[in-house]
Amino acid sequence: MPHAPTDLLDSRHTTVRRAMQEAAVDAMVVVSLPNITWLTNFAGSSAIVVLTHDRLLFITDSRYVTAVAGMQGTEHEPPGFELVTVDGSYDATLAQLLKTRGFQRIGFEATHVTVSRFRGLEAALADRQPPAELVPLDGVIEAARSVKDSHEIEVLRKAGRLLSDVTMHVLRLPRDGMTERELALLIDTAIHRVGFEKTAFDTIVASGPNSALPHAHPTERRLSEGDLVVLDFGGVYDSYCVDLTRTVGIGQLPPRAHEVHAAVRSAHDRAIAATRPGVSRFEIDAAARDVLAAAGMGAAFGHGTGHGLGIEVHEEPRITRRGPNVDASRETITAGMVFTIEPGAYFPGFGGVRIEDDVLVTADGVELLTQAPTDLITI
Amino acid sequence: MPHAPTDLLDSRHTTVRRAMQEAAVDAMVVVSLPNITWLTNFAGSSAIVVLTHDRLLFITDSRYVTAVAGMQGTEHEPPGFELVTVDGSYDATLAQLLKTRGFQRIGFEATHVTVSRFRGLEAALADRQPPAELVPLDGVIEAARSVKDSHEIEVLRKAGRLLSDVTMHVLRLPRDGMTERELALLIDTAIHRVGFEKTAFDTIVASGPNSALPHAHPTERRLSEGDLVVLDFGGVYDSYCVDLTRTVGIGQLPPRAHEVHAAVRSAHDRAIAATRPGVSRFEIDAAARDVLAAAGMGAAFGHGTGHGLGIEVHEEPRITRRGPNVDASRETITAGMVFTIEPGAYFPGFGGVRIEDDVLVTADGVELLTQAPTDLITI
Repeated sequence: MPHAPTDLLDSRHTTVRRAMQEAAVDAMVVVSLPNITWLTNFAGSSAIVVLTHDRLLFITDSRYVTAVAGMQGTEHEPPGFELVTVDGSYDATLAQLLKTRGFQRIGFEATHVTVSRFRGLEAALADRQPPAELVPLDGVIEAARSVKDSHEIEVLRKAGRLLSDVTMHVLRLPRDGMTERELALLIDTAIHRVGFEKTAFDTIVASGPNSALPHAHPTERRLSEGDLVVLDFGGVYDSYCVDLTRTVGIGQLPPRAHEVHAAVRSAHDRAIAATRPGVSRFEIDAAARDVLAAAGMGAAFGHGTGHGLGIEVHEEPRITRRGPNVDASRETITAGMVFTIEPGAYFPGFGGVRIEDDVLVTADGVELLTQAPTDLITI
Repeated sequence: MPHAPTDLLDSRHTTVRRAMQEAAVDAMVVVSLPNITWLTNFAGSSAIVVLTHDRLLFITDSRYVTAVAGMQGTEHEPPGFELVTVDGSYDATLAQLLKTRGFQRIGFEATHVTVSRFRGLEAALADRQPPAELVPLDGVIEAARSVKDSHEIEVLRKAGRLLSDVTMHVLRLPRDGMTERELALLIDTAIHRVGFEKTAFDTIVASGPNSALPHAHPTERRLSEGDLVVLDFGGVYDSYCVDLTRTVGIGQLPPRAHEVHAAVRSAHDRAIAATRPGVSRFEIDAAARDVLAAAGMGAAFGHGTGHGLGIEVHEEPRITRRGPNVDASRETITAGMVFTIEPGAYFPGFGGVRIEDDVLVTADGVELLTQAPTDLITI
């Protein structure tokens, strides 16, 4: 579980309560687990929070009751905490709680609540007079989470240093003849040994033609002469995620591999240089994309330039291409945001390159949370 | 990615199409990733499927297009497969597809589709004349998935044998003085080495008082004389999950620890003995629960007796206690179901015991997919 102190939890609650007040709701149901972690430090797999103007009602089941009770009275206890144990199902317990507490306008996360849960709540609340109203109140916590507070920055700095250490070790691991799976296991072991709770996602080791698949799973393929090898891995430290990619070469590489690597590296550097408070997240993406387009590799860069990091390994802000179907809300980058910069270029049948680091936006630019060589290391 | 052959995928599609026909829908939108894996063998992190009476429209983004194209023309290709690449966002691409294909009644998974996605689709389809109708069609795929087909049984048998091998190794690992985290890392390494793609969930090593927390995270606590240590771990093999728990002792244990272990072991054995086609899932739970109640440990067993295993590590059937707020649908156990049997007893401050195996329901009882000693091993 994370260890945000009570006063920081309190200011997080205040942020949400401000949005609740604007929307004139007297309770806010939170079902998204990362949002719950941010509000409470709870990192288990099942809970629902109902935030009111002065309480935090915490619904969980018997598996977690003892663990949650252990937070009470500590300096990491969520303020206004009130434990409610599940009776039967979460949905029934939540409906019962909302009914008995007599809330009139209840905010909920429309991007997380499913249609069936919503309809069940609606039905359960319908016999109240007047019936309670369910009000969609979205993105409030996600937006707040995108700007890290002092506790989160401290944790992410530490996590970034650990991942940099892992990287220095990992860059020495690849060997001609090793399978992708063997290398991935060595990377995972290094991530655990250095002190991460777990990997942040399934480690990617993609060699030769597999490196053209941005989300490849490690296979039994053996690294061999002339391969580009994409190594993408991350760790979770005190519930916060960091994420890094390097691409190495095995033996003598074709000149094209060097050209692709140089272009991606330059795109990575330019996107980082373009990052500071006040810019649009689309501009940062364009900074990377323009470099690759100028090198004739625009079509080879299909994914976005980066994603926020925090309790989730993919969160706001999304550093992506502006487009007709792309959500353009919350466009401006602000100090305290933490995200990846990870341009890539992929050529089916040939291979690909991706280079990724994690940045913290400061008052006038960025602080690199991860640091390791970005030149093309060949083994 | 799993490797179900095309003819089995075809009969899975037929099962869903039968339900579609009953509900008179001409398309079914599937957003649940495990459901998509079951329909298509796709194991990536982002896709939407629209199943029609003769096609499977597969929406994914640029990261997965190359991988998905690679399935085409193989003996594991989903029948009727048609690839649609995301333009902008998944929601916009889906809405556009549903509009241009002119579907009239569209089934959707109300337990997986969020309120905001639903409202967006509703709005996008409203200007059609007559407007398309969105029809909740829930649990069809989950129910079908709860009964494994020949491919799945073969994979789960193999996965169970691998996990049994891991267990024989793991039971020799604990040492007085080792930290929970160190032991968890050794277990994870063993899971990877034996051939699993990854762990099925965060490995639990819970020692001494921590063993009273059914979902503990490994800590820096050192195993020490007199501890009960719960070891709960699992692996994913060819996209299918298996899961096992043993509880060991360090050195001389208090007599109470032996009593608790004996009661839990007996509950485990009785629940397995009660499992066969035609029984209620609540009866299997009661078989375990009655043993613990008779030993005066009823209140110490807060969670359910088991959960289905497959593409998800927790799926149907749920082997739980019958109760006023518990969903009692799909109560009957049938041959081909695969689930865990994992009673436990937990005493805050003292410790806990859980013993878990995986069973396949056969024509007249069960086949144990995992096999390892269940007696109390002390180190």
